[in-house]
Amino acid sequence: MRFKKIDREDIKRLSKIVGKERISQGMSNLKLHSLDQSHHRESLPDVVIWPVKEEEVSEILSYANKKMIPVTAWGAGTSLEGNPIPLFGGIVLDFTLMNRILRIREEDFQADVQPGVIYQDLNYRLRHRGLFFPPDPGARATIGGIIANNASGIRSLRYGSARDNVLRLRVVLADGSIIDVGTRANKSSSGYDLLRLFVGSEGTLGIFVEATVRLRGIPEYTGSAIASFEKIEECAEAVTQIIKAGIIPACLEIMDQECIKVINKIKGIGLSVLPTLLLELHGGSSSQIKEEMEICSEICFSSGCKSFRKGLQKEEYSRIMEARYSLGESIRKANPGRIHTVLDVAVPISSFPELVSFAKKETERYKIPSYIFAHAGSGNLHLAFMGKKDEEEWKRIEEIKDRIVEKAILLGGTATGEHGVGIGKRKYMKIEHGEAISFMKKIKKLFDPNGILNPGKIFP
Amino acid sequence: MRFKKIDREDIKRLSKIVGKERISQGMSNLKLHSLDQSHHRESLPDVVIWPVKEEEVSEILSYANKKMIPVTAWGAGTSLEGNPIPLFGGIVLDFTLMNRILRIREEDFQADVQPGVIYQDLNYRLRHRGLFFPPDPGARATIGGIIANNASGIRSLRYGSARDNVLRLRVVLADGSIIDVGTRANKSSSGYDLLRLFVGSEGTLGIFVEATVRLRGIPEYTGSAIASFEKIEECAEAVTQIIKAGIIPACLEIMDQECIKVINKIKGIGLSVLPTLLLELHGGSSSQIKEEMEICSEICFSSGCKSFRKGLQKEEYSRIMEARYSLGESIRKANPGRIHTVLDVAVPISSFPELVSFAKKETERYKIPSYIFAHAGSGNLHLAFMGKKDEEEWKRIEEIKDRIVEKAILLGGTATGEHGVGIGKRKYMKIEHGEAISFMKKIKKLFDPNGILNPGKIFP
Repeated sequence: MRFKKIDREDIKRLSKIVGKERISQGMSNLKLHSLDQSHHRESLPDVVIWPVKEEEVSEILSYANKKMIPVTAWGAGTSLEGNPIPLFGGIVLDFTLMNRILRIREEDFQADVQPGVIYQDLNYRLRHRGLFFPPDPGARATIGGIIANNASGIRSLRYGSARDNVLRLRVVLADGSIIDVGTRANKSSSGYDLLRLFVGSEGTLGIFVEATVRLRGIPEYTGSAIASFEKIEECAEAVTQIIKAGIIPACLEIMDQECIKVINKIKGIGLSVLPTLLLELHGGSSSQIKEEMEICSEICFSSGCKSFRKGLQKEEYSRIMEARYSLGESIRKANPGRIHTVLDVAVPISSFPELVSFAKKETERYKIPSYIFAHAGSGNLHLAFMGKKDEEEWKRIEEIKDRIVEKAILLGGTATGEHGVGIGKRKYMKIEHGEAISFMKKIKKLFDPNGILNPGKIFP
Repeated sequence: MRFKKIDREDIKRLSKIVGKERISQGMSNLKLHSLDQSHHRESLPDVVIWPVKEEEVSEILSYANKKMIPVTAWGAGTSLEGNPIPLFGGIVLDFTLMNRILRIREEDFQADVQPGVIYQDLNYRLRHRGLFFPPDPGARATIGGIIANNASGIRSLRYGSARDNVLRLRVVLADGSIIDVGTRANKSSSGYDLLRLFVGSEGTLGIFVEATVRLRGIPEYTGSAIASFEKIEECAEAVTQIIKAGIIPACLEIMDQECIKVINKIKGIGLSVLPTLLLELHGGSSSQIKEEMEICSEICFSSGCKSFRKGLQKEEYSRIMEARYSLGESIRKANPGRIHTVLDVAVPISSFPELVSFAKKETERYKIPSYIFAHAGSGNLHLAFMGKKDEEEWKRIEEIKDRIVEKAILLGGTATGEHGVGIGKRKYMKIEHGEAISFMKKIKKLFDPNGILNPGKIFP
């Protein structure tokens, strides 16, 4: 790819579009936009711009497209596969200032938002109305980033991924033109589904400037429980059995004993140091919760669980959940001086125990600190490695990751459940998608003929 | 479009692929594949072929693509917008013989099926396992047709459309090559979403030869009710309020008094001749059903309902539902000698009462028998007209339809909620999608450069 290096003339022209206050070539700003939360190498943009309206985004893209300057959209930089790292420099569009909640359509369970709205800020605004936006990938992620990566998290088992919770997008294309895709109606069979093509396209097909997202009602009845097992394989088996029983918990999370050690230490929580299952039920009545909890308890015990504590007090449950949410951060704190990488694969639920068992055996062959945790009910496994700054060690980590990803694909699964392809998963695209990848490339070419949008991502 | 007319040489070559028993140019077979259940004009194919395996489909497409012969896939012919009418003749591929349920993956809530499997046959096979495939557009539709049109029906409010219930497709492309799209994992952020691009593409991008569909557990607890209102507007208002209350019924259907008259007459059901709401609740406990039913009852009464009968006996409820399912047929029977057309639009639920009121006023201006019914909880309105064989009358019907579709789009909705674009909705695509339509066209060109797949559909 032959991109143009940004020069003074470009900066002059771009400054005219947004004014001098919202464009920067300062090293600290470039550095802040050179790296997400992954282990991938940093790459500096040439300039960072903070647009405040779609007209600016359109003008910038139109200019960049003519001049062959790469443009990468930036939300909060919380992604985990290098998705917004500007590999070829150029312009980073930081959407922090386009962070308005434009309209909450309570009666339709919808909200119109700008891409820079922070996930937890939206839900904070919604809570008094009894509503929430569910994908839940992490509190500080932006809605734009969530949609771009088709992100999700702890509660996607019940409420789906970003793709299931977006109704409409307003998109600026590479040439600066603007299109609307999707509809605010709850169902449609009108033409090709461009909406879901943009969701998860990681800023490579267009840049969102507005989204209508689907909201859900905060459940009236909830229940929670925590269960400990001797072996993580038993824990995984219990998860499969709960799903098989037809129960759809809001959250069905696994953490291995290494994760528990870390959160006990960093967060001062005194959980038994055993593979642990975290269960949260949402429902329409207390008797439903009670009944489902009973079934889950029976399944856990028959899968070999050592303890099953239900009816946790709100305060205790909140502390445990907070520890789960900040698990990645805690793992990093517990391993100073090491670099972390998180594996993210998903398989059909019946294959989940086999995947977990395979992953465990793989990690045991090496002495690199590793942590298994999973949105288990969705068959979505994570595995965090904390590697030394040592080339040999990272080669080994990459080897383990390769084997686990290939195993997941072999089991009918996917190379990424929720983190996106970014840089790290490009090499598996051919194995997972076969010939279909060539059509993805053609679609990329169709929307972005010059290849200026987030170049170097998704494709091998 | 310049297509080749099929000649004897073509027939010879095609016969070699499938054998002489599964290819026909007999007039009765051509006639059977010239028309769906819509009012659109018949158009005969040149030949009908019944493939039994993907290799045949691949060879046929490869040949047709080289020779510029149109190919249209055919399921059960139950669509309502002319979706499978072979407008330019050529080959119709009838998938009736590719009707095997390949595998039921009970533990994953998934089934692998061939496209010719009939909707009710699949659910008949699944019922002893406590599972069902939910889109529910009509008992005799094929899975292939359901996916091609992104069809849905009475229970899509709770369980989604076809698009929400397909995980993987095996697709033969125009040139005969075969790709797999999607994954059997329950979540994925791996590359562009080609799966959902194919769902709803009406056989214009590729032809499905296998699908993995998502199954749901048959609910343990259900409840049903029937409510009568003086005015259909009140009925629509009650629906909006029920959804606003955060209740997600499995079914929330409206029929106007004209529909009730028809089913009373044809099916011998003695319902009050008033606008009627049909409510079905699914849930995890009887107390949840009871509580939700209480709320629905209160809402209906405060919206002006005259009677609210809950706890219908299973037999009575089945009879009413059967009458609802065969409503289209009953309307045709009640109007012998007339031609029927069904409008299908959807809007955000808050706009549903306004749409219903608008539609009612529009129809009252004419004296054409018309029937309002709706998957109301999804904001999905249907309006059946029974027109005389009279050009003037059909012009008026088209005018009313135009106005209602344009109103729906103006209200943030869509030209088709579940029937697809086919022939009838092509003219609204530009109004609904604006510039996005040009990208749909480019995607069509990308997958089917010669335009042989179901030509003349979707695009204006």
